[in-house]
Amino acid sequence: MTDTPLATQAPPGGEGLAGTPLDEGTPATRALSAHLAAEAGGFLRELPSVDLHTLRRVGAALHTFEQLLDPAWSQELREELARLGGLLGQERAYSRRLARLLTSLDSLTCADATGTERTAGPVPQQREAEGLLARHPGAPKARALLERQLTLGRSRAHTTALQELGSARFHALADRMTLLVSDLPLRPGAEAAPVAALLPCAVAEATALVSAVRALPLDRGAVPYSGDMLHDPGDDQPWQQLRGLVLRTQYALEVCGPLLGTRATRPAAALSDLARTLARHRDAAEAAEAAALAALTPRITPATAYVLGVVHADQRLEVEAARHAFSSAWPDLDRSGWLTDTWLTNR
Amino acid sequence: MTDTPLATQAPPGGEGLAGTPLDEGTPATRALSAHLAAEAGGFLRELPSVDLHTLRRVGAALHTFEQLLDPAWSQELREELARLGGLLGQERAYSRRLARLLTSLDSLTCADATGTERTAGPVPQQREAEGLLARHPGAPKARALLERQLTLGRSRAHTTALQELGSARFHALADRMTLLVSDLPLRPGAEAAPVAALLPCAVAEATALVSAVRALPLDRGAVPYSGDMLHDPGDDQPWQQLRGLVLRTQYALEVCGPLLGTRATRPAAALSDLARTLARHRDAAEAAEAAALAALTPRITPATAYVLGVVHADQRLEVEAARHAFSSAWPDLDRSGWLTDTWLTNR
Repeated sequence: MTDTPLATQAPPGGEGLAGTPLDEGTPATRALSAHLAAEAGGFLRELPSVDLHTLRRVGAALHTFEQLLDPAWSQELREELARLGGLLGQERAYSRRLARLLTSLDSLTCADATGTERTAGPVPQQREAEGLLARHPGAPKARALLERQLTLGRSRAHTTALQELGSARFHALADRMTLLVSDLPLRPGAEAAPVAALLPCAVAEATALVSAVRALPLDRGAVPYSGDMLHDPGDDQPWQQLRGLVLRTQYALEVCGPLLGTRATRPAAALSDLARTLARHRDAAEAAEAAALAALTPRITPATAYVLGVVHADQRLEVEAARHAFSSAWPDLDRSGWLTDTWLTNR
Repeated sequence: MTDTPLATQAPPGGEGLAGTPLDEGTPATRALSAHLAAEAGGFLRELPSVDLHTLRRVGAALHTFEQLLDPAWSQELREELARLGGLLGQERAYSRRLARLLTSLDSLTCADATGTERTAGPVPQQREAEGLLARHPGAPKARALLERQLTLGRSRAHTTALQELGSARFHALADRMTLLVSDLPLRPGAEAAPVAALLPCAVAEATALVSAVRALPLDRGAVPYSGDMLHDPGDDQPWQQLRGLVLRTQYALEVCGPLLGTRATRPAAALSDLARTLARHRDAAEAAEAAALAALTPRITPATAYVLGVVHADQRLEVEAARHAFSSAWPDLDRSGWLTDTWLTNR
């Protein structure tokens, strides 16, 4: 699988329609085709390596603008993209988890020099930062255990990813992406819609995001040290799903960029910040789970288990901190009306 | 040791001079004598049980108003009071630690019904709060271990306290308290000082408190989730010492109550809140240490050790939360000028 002539002609991916000149008579499907062709072209150019962001952007566009697309075809491709993204994402997830847990453990166990800068007061105290587990006998073993288990997980995920990239299923997906570049399958009659028809689709994503956030206990998250971390963590799932909704809304605004102009800049930046916060939530929750799993390893020493308990709690604190950050940042975006007012549709 | 006639004549302790009518010509030493006589009288009346607050209040007054008192005598009595308070406080400290750790552990391990109330959103979710360690196999063992160790510590502290209360040293202290009721040893020439001379003594305590707080990293504490809990807890000692300074200032304002009138009400209430926050800091730090110590018990299972690691981290989070609460509340008191402006001296 190498670059195709079509793919090399496509504009660089990930920029929405920002560079494309548009007038109001442009059909919505032409604008959407250009966006998807750019993304799919990027995907094909980079083969055999796969950019997970591209998979996510294509999947998001297929979801957001489904009203313009052949429904069965777009549904099927979305499912394939989600499956592939999940599969290829595992290796990276293990790397993130390992890096996060080792960083946490090193910070918990080692004395380092960051303490001086972080200390306030007129006379900087010349003490060193020292974690709670400094010189703890279980720390080196816990570190080795986490490293071994997560490296093994990453290797397995790597093997699975390589197998996937050589499979007929992946080749079929690449063929569909080629179709996306050249001949986007549309819903009958969709060609008549003007470019402004993209906007209500983006509004629907924003509305779904707002509804999902309203179902969350934000007022609890906004209070620091609410005890959610350990005593009542609740379900991580609604927070994790939120990230997908935030990204879909962000990508939808990017696709509608030429229609919205500078009005889209601030909400897009705010959404991007929220997505980063939610990625931290996901990473910390996954790392906490990995620490808890490692503690179930047979025949570890009590000291190792103790250290893993502290590491687990530390990552759950990061989860709570991420929820607090989201809960503190969201009301500004919500009050701004960027996502719920009618300005998206009233050009 | 039973009630003395003198003691029964003394007004109830712990109220400063609030009830005593004063004019400006009253000697400071007479006001101070009345205060100390009331506290010492309370101490003697309650024998053989000892109220630790009374010990602390007498010790604080001896410190704050030392300029009016026989220095060697008051220094010696203060040291005896501090020693006795430390000794008798151990039993109560073990009880607090045990209660705190069991409450934490039960909350971490049990499902309970508080979740429904704490959940926001239009439709209250009918889920139950569930701690991170719910159904963890190490939880019952960790609970039993903590209960055993801390109950043992409390029993030992109880024995030590009983021995102390029967000792010649304690009888000598009670004799000194009797002297406090009847014949306060004054510094030569102190009788000439008018009652207003109490105020600069209180100001000196407030100034010492402000200096101590300025040396703390309050701007770090004011940021929630700064990572102080586990990664850079620093030294608990300056925070613990702060509690003594807060209480001394609060007690000094109470003694000066009749001179200050309602102006003392708000700072006294603010100081009382801060003292409670710092007591939480102390309790959580001590409980964290007890969990860490329990984890060093030989031959515990890894599951038990893991649970103790989570409990340790949980208590350190409480320490961080207390620092955050203090750091958030202090600036209001500081900006109010109650403690540093000259109003305390400008009647």
